Amino acid sequence: MTTRNHCLERDAQDPLAPLRAQFDLPAGVIYLDGNSLGARPKAALARAQQVIAQEWGHDLIRSWNTAGWFELPRRLGNLLAPLIGGVDGEVVVTDTTSVNLFKALAAALHMQAAAERRVIVTERANFPTDIYMAQGLTGWLDRGYSLRLIDSPDQLPAAIGADVALVMLTHVNYRTGYQYDMKATSALAHAAGALIVWDLAHSAGAVPVDLSADGADLAVGCTYKYLNGGPGAPAFIWVPKRHQAQFRQPLSGWWGHAAPFAMAPDFQPADGIARALCGTQPIVSLAMVECGLDVHRQTSMAAIRAKSLALTDLFIDLVEARCADHPLGLVTPRDHARRGSQVSFTHPHGYAVMQALIGRGVIGDYREPAIMRFGFTPLYTSYADVWDAVEILRDILDRKDYNVDAKRDAVT
Amino acid sequence: MTTRNHCLERDAQDPLAPLRAQFDLPAGVIYLDGNSLGARPKAALARAQQVIAQEWGHDLIRSWNTAGWFELPRRLGNLLAPLIGGVDGEVVVTDTTSVNLFKALAAALHMQAAAERRVIVTERANFPTDIYMAQGLTGWLDRGYSLRLIDSPDQLPAAIGADVALVMLTHVNYRTGYQYDMKATSALAHAAGALIVWDLAHSAGAVPVDLSADGADLAVGCTYKYLNGGPGAPAFIWVPKRHQAQFRQPLSGWWGHAAPFAMAPDFQPADGIARALCGTQPIVSLAMVECGLDVHRQTSMAAIRAKSLALTDLFIDLVEARCADHPLGLVTPRDHARRGSQVSFTHPHGYAVMQALIGRGVIGDYREPAIMRFGFTPLYTSYADVWDAVEILRDILDRKDYNVDAKRDAVT
Repeated sequence: MTTRNHCLERDAQDPLAPLRAQFDLPAGVIYLDGNSLGARPKAALARAQQVIAQEWGHDLIRSWNTAGWFELPRRLGNLLAPLIGGVDGEVVVTDTTSVNLFKALAAALHMQAAAERRVIVTERANFPTDIYMAQGLTGWLDRGYSLRLIDSPDQLPAAIGADVALVMLTHVNYRTGYQYDMKATSALAHAAGALIVWDLAHSAGAVPVDLSADGADLAVGCTYKYLNGGPGAPAFIWVPKRHQAQFRQPLSGWWGHAAPFAMAPDFQPADGIARALCGTQPIVSLAMVECGLDVHRQTSMAAIRAKSLALTDLFIDLVEARCADHPLGLVTPRDHARRGSQVSFTHPHGYAVMQALIGRGVIGDYREPAIMRFGFTPLYTSYADVWDAVEILRDILDRKDYNVDAKRDAVT
Repeated sequence: MTTRNHCLERDAQDPLAPLRAQFDLPAGVIYLDGNSLGARPKAALARAQQVIAQEWGHDLIRSWNTAGWFELPRRLGNLLAPLIGGVDGEVVVTDTTSVNLFKALAAALHMQAAAERRVIVTERANFPTDIYMAQGLTGWLDRGYSLRLIDSPDQLPAAIGADVALVMLTHVNYRTGYQYDMKATSALAHAAGALIVWDLAHSAGAVPVDLSADGADLAVGCTYKYLNGGPGAPAFIWVPKRHQAQFRQPLSGWWGHAAPFAMAPDFQPADGIARALCGTQPIVSLAMVECGLDVHRQTSMAAIRAKSLALTDLFIDLVEARCADHPLGLVTPRDHARRGSQVSFTHPHGYAVMQALIGRGVIGDYREPAIMRFGFTPLYTSYADVWDAVEILRDILDRKDYNVDAKRDAVT
């Protein structure tokens, strides 16, 4: 039987353990919400100070050249690309995940415009804003487009018919932690003549992703979860070289222009990935994205994945062993191949139990209906953290030390 | 005849002069490019440190509630609203100016959808990205929309015919500093049955704006120029209460949903201005916007306007008196009512002369063709600055101390 000492021994042997020192983690907190907002790399504060005091305050407008602001979305994209199976010139860090998804969906529909296909397939359990953005786009295009929502992944083959222009899926589900087989699913879409757009919000930096090898067409994702870029840090979009010439998107702002300083009155898209850019980016928030990527460069996605599975296995085993008397239901797949880097359990009083956990320093979060989410970030989560979190959960449940009348906050 | 001592006397009597101490301005620099990137409020560094170290680093995900991140776009919008003639609940600070313009144009076309009007009127000399965004939108809508570009403001009455759905204008022109008569122009659009969308990029914080009194329909603008929000700081969008129920835009992300945490699979726009929001915002860059607004709250747009006109009058007078032997051409209107807070002069070697000025610490910028731009920010620009800048310009011109072969930087 596992003990806390076993966990401490695993931490002592963990090759990623030294990276924890590069993060600012408050005392008394076990942070299991890096899937919502990643912890702060210590270097981010100095980086922001440099941008604010030196680049903005002292160098002022000259920093567009001298500090490389103009190149920043592409330079960060090149640093991020290896984590998702992209290469130089295929990724930019810019705008929000929602806005980038809008660009990707619009571009994919444009590539399919000659095909008389008018259906976008996605799943009802997708992150809602992805569905909303698709609704926003198709509603405005007014060309007979519609969404087809599947209720579970096994409905995909039947849903992708000859009328389907594109499939839009989130690789790792935000609520359940279910991970799609990207290669098989992309092949399924292509076999039916559809394109596939992946949302990597819960994948980038969390699980190995190889967009190129797995045949993805376009992808977007988030930098403020497992990539630790900071609250609301700009998102990314990946356009593989094979699709760049056909990639057209309606948010055609100056930064995506072929000659952005010629001030010509007609839009001409830049060659390459720059055509996915639009307007001026929030430089301070953007610059801090590099600090999270710097930590990732010190390890590998293989090492992160090995520890992620070990942490999530340990959490599942301990909860099921030590909280066996309580009505907890595992939502996340046991199958490693189908699991992201989070574990979700249902509990009839999930919201109240999560509030009690947070009150005791174990920070996860809650998602309707009745789901407690626990995210595991191998860069800074230890095996002992897992043990301690489960012990606190067990104590709360055993003593019913939660308030079933707890009111939900505005944001949880 | 004006002397430097006269300028020092005016500074001594200037009620805004004490505000300069709230900005970080590097020694040896006369900064006349606040129309491109406003100088740094000293408070911005501490504000960013608070957000990064305390709110992100220590409080982590809880800051969405405890630090008010979720309310931030609306709270900042309420602080900004009085500067542009808006009221509480009509402005949000979010996304980029380009993206907000896309929302505003889409919403305006939606309001006009029943009207069989298919033309957007704007001017060829508008800021190019505004034209690009309109091209992006109309090209994708594919419903016969087209742009009608006028060559000068006096062509507006003839251009706004019964086929015009909306007029899109930048209130103060980025290149010339020409300021439209917002009230008369809005009335002209309305008389023809069109809506009018204003871009306030070079107006907000620079000149008095009263969107409500002047009959504007929708407006967007920038926080990183005269509002000193920081490089690429999120932009704003104004939707007056009278149009909010009809305001629909295709970038329908989670933050604009009526119940953003219900995770429902169908988009329902929030009541009020929140429906102009889309995805998660870059909190550090967003939070710093408040520091520039805090300086504005210590004065009034009337005081800023009085000093702005005095500074630009002085600059024009001194350049014309002291550089009279050189081929400088005033582009900016002499008429106060038609002038923004910048002065533009042409010179056959405008780019080279501007590089020489920057090399001597006078930072303005250059825009094709042959235009040197000088922006005046009454919060931190002094009368002596104006004198000294003109003396350096005169010296450069008299001695031909500029390199006519100077190559343009990537961003200027």
